[in-house]
Amino acid sequence: MSYELVVIGTVHSSIKDWKNAPKMEDEPGAVQARIEIDPAYVDGLDEMRIGQQLELFTWFHKADRDVLSVHPRGDINRPRRGVFSTRSPFRPNPIGLHRVKLIAFDGPTTLIVDSLEAIDGTPVIDIKPNPKEIS
Amino acid sequence: MSYELVVIGTVHSSIKDWKNAPKMEDEPGAVQARIEIDPAYVDGLDEMRIGQQLELFTWFHKADRDVLSVHPRGDINRPRRGVFSTRSPFRPNPIGLHRVKLIAFDGPTTLIVDSLEAIDGTPVIDIKPNPKEIS
Repeated sequence: MSYELVVIGTVHSSIKDWKNAPKMEDEPGAVQARIEIDPAYVDGLDEMRIGQQLELFTWFHKADRDVLSVHPRGDINRPRRGVFSTRSPFRPNPIGLHRVKLIAFDGPTTLIVDSLEAIDGTPVIDIKPNPKEIS
Repeated sequence: MSYELVVIGTVHSSIKDWKNAPKMEDEPGAVQARIEIDPAYVDGLDEMRIGQQLELFTWFHKADRDVLSVHPRGDINRPRRGVFSTRSPFRPNPIGLHRVKLIAFDGPTTLIVDSLEAIDGTPVIDIKPNPKEIS
């Protein structure tokens, strides 16, 4: 059983290689990034506010989807753990979830976010407001 | 551009109709639920612990994916807002994100979680530990 996921946008970042990327958006090495949304989805951005905390959903398109256990943080000295007990990008559906702050718009469909670890070219699949900030 | 999302499990819940479902997992009406994971993915659950806070990712298979703006919380007295400024299930990729607590296992691949608003039969697409609890 499967569903089709559509790509709604792309990450533009100075981080080009996932081997050098930090593991989480709040770790050293995460950088300000541009999120370019496909203009077809511009109406979905209506009422998004600068300063808002967002949950950015990406698709780790370079991840191995056939792996079910990993060494936490890629450290081979640590015993393997099931992927659902980790936030490894290696998993059946390599969804990335990043907590970011919207710091500016650059035109109607490009968002500038404060701190992101996803590499340049990562597909974007959804954006939601932080549940603590919705009204 | 699109990717194929695989279903890794299914929600079993006493909530049968989304029209009566609460909007969020911390709202009145959310119920204890069973998450049945496909046995093919059992190794992915290794090291998951009872009491752990999880992020459960679902696919709102009944949602309208062609909608880009909605009345917040379905209240037609409120002005429409872009779907990426809401947590509506209506969106291009109807991913549900639910913060739940694992309260028990029922066999190796069925998880009992404390409080969930997703309806019976909702496909499960990923599980991650709460980022504040990972080690």
